[in-house]
Amino acid sequence: MRPQDNGGIGIRPVNFCSNCGNKVVTRIPSGDDKPRFVCDDCGTIHYRNPLMVIGAIPEWGDKILLCKRAIEPRLGFWTLPAGFMELGESTGQAALRETLEEANARIELTGLYTMLSVPHVNQVHIFYRARLLDLDFGPGMESLEVALFAENEIPWDELAFRTVTTTLKHYYADRRQKPFPVHTGEVHAPPRPSKS
Amino acid sequence: MRPQDNGGIGIRPVNFCSNCGNKVVTRIPSGDDKPRFVCDDCGTIHYRNPLMVIGAIPEWGDKILLCKRAIEPRLGFWTLPAGFMELGESTGQAALRETLEEANARIELTGLYTMLSVPHVNQVHIFYRARLLDLDFGPGMESLEVALFAENEIPWDELAFRTVTTTLKHYYADRRQKPFPVHTGEVHAPPRPSKS
Repeated sequence: MRPQDNGGIGIRPVNFCSNCGNKVVTRIPSGDDKPRFVCDDCGTIHYRNPLMVIGAIPEWGDKILLCKRAIEPRLGFWTLPAGFMELGESTGQAALRETLEEANARIELTGLYTMLSVPHVNQVHIFYRARLLDLDFGPGMESLEVALFAENEIPWDELAFRTVTTTLKHYYADRRQKPFPVHTGEVHAPPRPSKS
Repeated sequence: MRPQDNGGIGIRPVNFCSNCGNKVVTRIPSGDDKPRFVCDDCGTIHYRNPLMVIGAIPEWGDKILLCKRAIEPRLGFWTLPAGFMELGESTGQAALRETLEEANARIELTGLYTMLSVPHVNQVHIFYRARLLDLDFGPGMESLEVALFAENEIPWDELAFRTVTTTLKHYYADRRQKPFPVHTGEVHAPPRPSKS
């Protein structure tokens, strides 16, 4: 997962029109009911929308593959291979590509598994179950280390993202009673520390 | 579904930096492997990513609710209520909101149903099964007409989008043998007419 649009913390404001370069204004366009960034020079409406992060749970026997992050955010923490979906690809292709990029690992997808909305950072995280095809893997540019973990070896306190934790908790609960259902849900911002 | 980013036909190019207004260049940023729109003045990288379209299959007994589109693309064709996911919401909230906006209808989601990638227009279409809560519905701003259809009344030749057709074909096949599994897949551009 590469930092993107402010490192995944949020979506950047639009100051200038990416089409003609003039200053934009914020107003509700005709036929709409929400404020948008609008260019009154060329008429372009600059919509902003949530981004998809797509990943996989690569299985090898009773172990799964995790990557230790070499980049911010959450440098040094462990994650399932995942990243921002690119133009021109399908969700499945994104999962294969990210696993290849981050872990140099080849997988075969075995089913959609979790779709978790993270509204406070405007993202939806989607994970597939997958079969690791061989043991010829190793860290890509964005990983410090790639390794297989049995359930009792998962570094729960060193996982990079709550959607990864949620996905793995579902995974180990479901694995005891196959088949795997699809889980959907939301992950919200943690409560701010009280000022009192 | 509101027209967005070129009416859903594709993703607009970036000519100017939306942060500082200077001209952008296209190059592969350090640590990346794909060409991006980059501002060499303020350093902003302008990533472009696929968009999510979220919708629902609102059920009332053995009928489902469809909307006749009042806007392009596909004006006058029938669709399931659906539209672009907005910032700050979850996929489920997007399905409820779009159904309210396009059909003035209140629904309760009963499960994720289809997730269909449409790579040639850089979209992922996601549909939930849903229960219509009452019959107090009617066309919103983007609909000409809203109506309930039994299976033998579905206007198959007048459906607006192939992801709607795919979703409804799965739906009627699955309905004969509940429970409903989740379907994922891809919808590609139709082949171009041969020049010979």
